Amino acid sequence: MFALDPRLETSSIFLVDLPLCQARLQADVRWSWIVLIPRRNGLRELEDLAPDDLEELMREILSAGRAVRAIGDSAGRPVEKLNVGALGNVVAQLHIHIVGRRSDDPAWPGPVWGFGAPIDYAAEEASAVVALARANLKA
Amino acid sequence: MFALDPRLETSSIFLVDLPLCQARLQADVRWSWIVLIPRRNGLRELEDLAPDDLEELMREILSAGRAVRAIGDSAGRPVEKLNVGALGNVVAQLHIHIVGRRSDDPAWPGPVWGFGAPIDYAAEEASAVVALARANLKA
Repeated sequence: MFALDPRLETSSIFLVDLPLCQARLQADVRWSWIVLIPRRNGLRELEDLAPDDLEELMREILSAGRAVRAIGDSAGRPVEKLNVGALGNVVAQLHIHIVGRRSDDPAWPGPVWGFGAPIDYAAEEASAVVALARANLKA
Repeated sequence: MFALDPRLETSSIFLVDLPLCQARLQADVRWSWIVLIPRRNGLRELEDLAPDDLEELMREILSAGRAVRAIGDSAGRPVEKLNVGALGNVVAQLHIHIVGRRSDDPAWPGPVWGFGAPIDYAAEEASAVVALARANLKA
């Protein structure tokens, strides 16, 4: 059974299980931000994935990028640049961030990781964003 | 003809042209760090690449990761975690960073991008690292 690191679980909200990854919404209104976690245990690096899984991962990264753009559009803050990153310095379980950036966002042009403190979604807002992200990830 | 952004050119050293990307060594001794730039003009996002190019990009990212590990090993500083990132907030031309991280490096566990000022390689050291990286990228 797929085990999700508890730190990824508490910092994000379940969206959908894609063929390879679990997609989650980062619980931080400052950015349109989706995290993809390949649903295989024991992965730390991209090289730990089989070639077919790497191809699927790339497809899911593009799909997450479309969903991140949709979230930004719906908030009236269209994404100007996508940031895609697999770091894992804090949580070693392999996960990939897809973050929508704008030149007026608080960390621009620096990276978002480790920048300030996350700001939670209000409950109603979270529901709407989750629904929108799911619709776009499944498309 | 492929045009490289002058900011990428001055911050890094040519290594080799792979089937898709130009591989360059980031001119910063603080980290084992390779940058891949797909040799197509006008690219900004991963989604701008054709599906075949995306597959090749993933192969070249893994290859760059092996070369980054070899650089770390040769310096007696084995890589503990790879960081892979496509940001492009400063230089929009699509480029992918592959960075070797260690828990004793200056920015750990934060991201390297925008952290402090780069420290150039000494000329002799650069030649050795370039030769090692080339050998590993071609393997």
